[in-house]
Amino acid sequence: MMSHPLAVGIDLGGTNLKGAVVTSDAAVLRRHAIPTNLERGPVAVVEDMEHLVDGLLKQVGAERSSLAGVGVAAPGPLSPTSGRILRTANLPGWVDVPLRDLVVERIGRPVFLENDGNAAAFGEFTAALRAGEAAEDLVMFTLGTGVGCGVILGRRILHGHFENAAELGHMIVAVDGLPCPCGQRGCLERYSSAGAVARRVAAALENGEASRLAGTGGTGRTLDAELVIEAARAGDALCKRIWDEACAYLALACINVQHAYNPARIILGGGMARAGAFLVGQVLGHVERRRWRLCDDLPAITLGRLGYDAGVVGAAALCFGDPPANPGTA
Amino acid sequence: MMSHPLAVGIDLGGTNLKGAVVTSDAAVLRRHAIPTNLERGPVAVVEDMEHLVDGLLKQVGAERSSLAGVGVAAPGPLSPTSGRILRTANLPGWVDVPLRDLVVERIGRPVFLENDGNAAAFGEFTAALRAGEAAEDLVMFTLGTGVGCGVILGRRILHGHFENAAELGHMIVAVDGLPCPCGQRGCLERYSSAGAVARRVAAALENGEASRLAGTGGTGRTLDAELVIEAARAGDALCKRIWDEACAYLALACINVQHAYNPARIILGGGMARAGAFLVGQVLGHVERRRWRLCDDLPAITLGRLGYDAGVVGAAALCFGDPPANPGTA
Repeated sequence: MMSHPLAVGIDLGGTNLKGAVVTSDAAVLRRHAIPTNLERGPVAVVEDMEHLVDGLLKQVGAERSSLAGVGVAAPGPLSPTSGRILRTANLPGWVDVPLRDLVVERIGRPVFLENDGNAAAFGEFTAALRAGEAAEDLVMFTLGTGVGCGVILGRRILHGHFENAAELGHMIVAVDGLPCPCGQRGCLERYSSAGAVARRVAAALENGEASRLAGTGGTGRTLDAELVIEAARAGDALCKRIWDEACAYLALACINVQHAYNPARIILGGGMARAGAFLVGQVLGHVERRRWRLCDDLPAITLGRLGYDAGVVGAAALCFGDPPANPGTA
Repeated sequence: MMSHPLAVGIDLGGTNLKGAVVTSDAAVLRRHAIPTNLERGPVAVVEDMEHLVDGLLKQVGAERSSLAGVGVAAPGPLSPTSGRILRTANLPGWVDVPLRDLVVERIGRPVFLENDGNAAAFGEFTAALRAGEAAEDLVMFTLGTGVGCGVILGRRILHGHFENAAELGHMIVAVDGLPCPCGQRGCLERYSSAGAVARRVAAALENGEASRLAGTGGTGRTLDAELVIEAARAGDALCKRIWDEACAYLALACINVQHAYNPARIILGGGMARAGAFLVGQVLGHVERRRWRLCDDLPAITLGRLGYDAGVVGAAALCFGDPPANPGTA
């Protein structure tokens, strides 16, 4: 570990391929992102990863041999054990892809594959440890196109028997609710993701509901969560309602997480978390109104400290093995 | 461990105080139950426990000194670490009771305190191991007066940061649903417990709904889940509806458990599980209609093998330390 103080974390998304050189202290030295070129297939994307890694290493004046490894965060379902992407909604055609071995072949260093929600949680966990905070048990929601999730229990990523634990974007929060491409109805990510917020406002506009966003394009193409949040803050009734529902379902999910894992903390990250206190405040308000009173075991609900770096930091941290003991919490 | 091949498991319920002498192989040698005399307070109940233990030991011709320990399962919230019952809905007036130490003082053997839902899950886990089944990761619902729950991950009981994990009877399954004494609305146990099923039918009868149970007493006093199940099986429309809703919400909870922990198995136990295939079949039907299609990570959903012994066997098993390695699953 001492002889390999650096790792590269890669976050393979449907839109962007993000990379960062990260120290064993979870500090990001350099980051870079390029568009993900899915149409060219896995082998071509792995070539892009190789260029990304080499470009980042060049920027920090390091060689591949100085890398503890390369961590790759990707959308699930995947198997960290076998290093294979099984199938994923965001990467059509990628079925049973041995991504880890493909990257090993190109890079020649140890490679770790992890679910992107898990990687982000592990990144925030690592950062919290570095900051001397208690972080043994935490749950993170990454509120982006969908809702990613990762669960750290006893300082380890929870994988479960089928290696697919913590898929809480598909927690059913509304019985017979909105249909989800996964086949279920009422999944959390149909309500509480940046994608869902924009989509639901667009659908309401198409139905002729009044809103200051009506002029910005009713097709949903130009609408994003940021616009909705801005309009909600400015008092737009439609946007306020959709945003409030997003926060209410997320609060309900936080309560269910409380009862399921009883973690010390729940961290909110991803694009929707850029709303900052406007998100956390409303979620906490709903939690306060809906939580149980049997005992005071409510986790702290906060923003993450890594922002968009959570995934790449977490992916890189996988390469350093167990994080060192947290002196703050024995 | 070899020198103490026996333990006593005690299940402290609001109605009954159950005890059993259990071998380190999870076999029940003797069991006995007496009414729980809550009004007399913790010290008197601990006296009853002492008599229960001594009576059981006498029946198997053993001495207290031959006990590896006494395991006590009790309703939460409680702290296994400090051995204290913090507060519990079913035992009014029992607030911050150092139950473990009270029992140690009377019995003079090691005592372990555990949440009753966790103990039942640990009992089924131990029994599954003995049967050579894969059981590292399992979740158990105990469907009784309320819904108890226990989660075994990596062969250990999940406790969480506040020692209150796996309280999934209070998973919110219906937004703004039926009020729960815990302070929340729409808790699983408001729909999918034996108590809820009887209560909901009684309420419908009071509202004048037609049912073959109308004659058996509309106040809910003589109604129990067994009667409802019998009537539902015989085609009674009201009972069928309430039973089906109980199974539907339980199915939803199973799907959320799948995504949360990704266990190999979900075990259904407690009084409602006496409906057997009538319960499991309907739950599986709802799961099949509502589950996701992204990957095949659905846990097996089955009845337990211990029936009402799950709690006492699990409580006793706590006294034997880690269960031995399961030869069937490396």
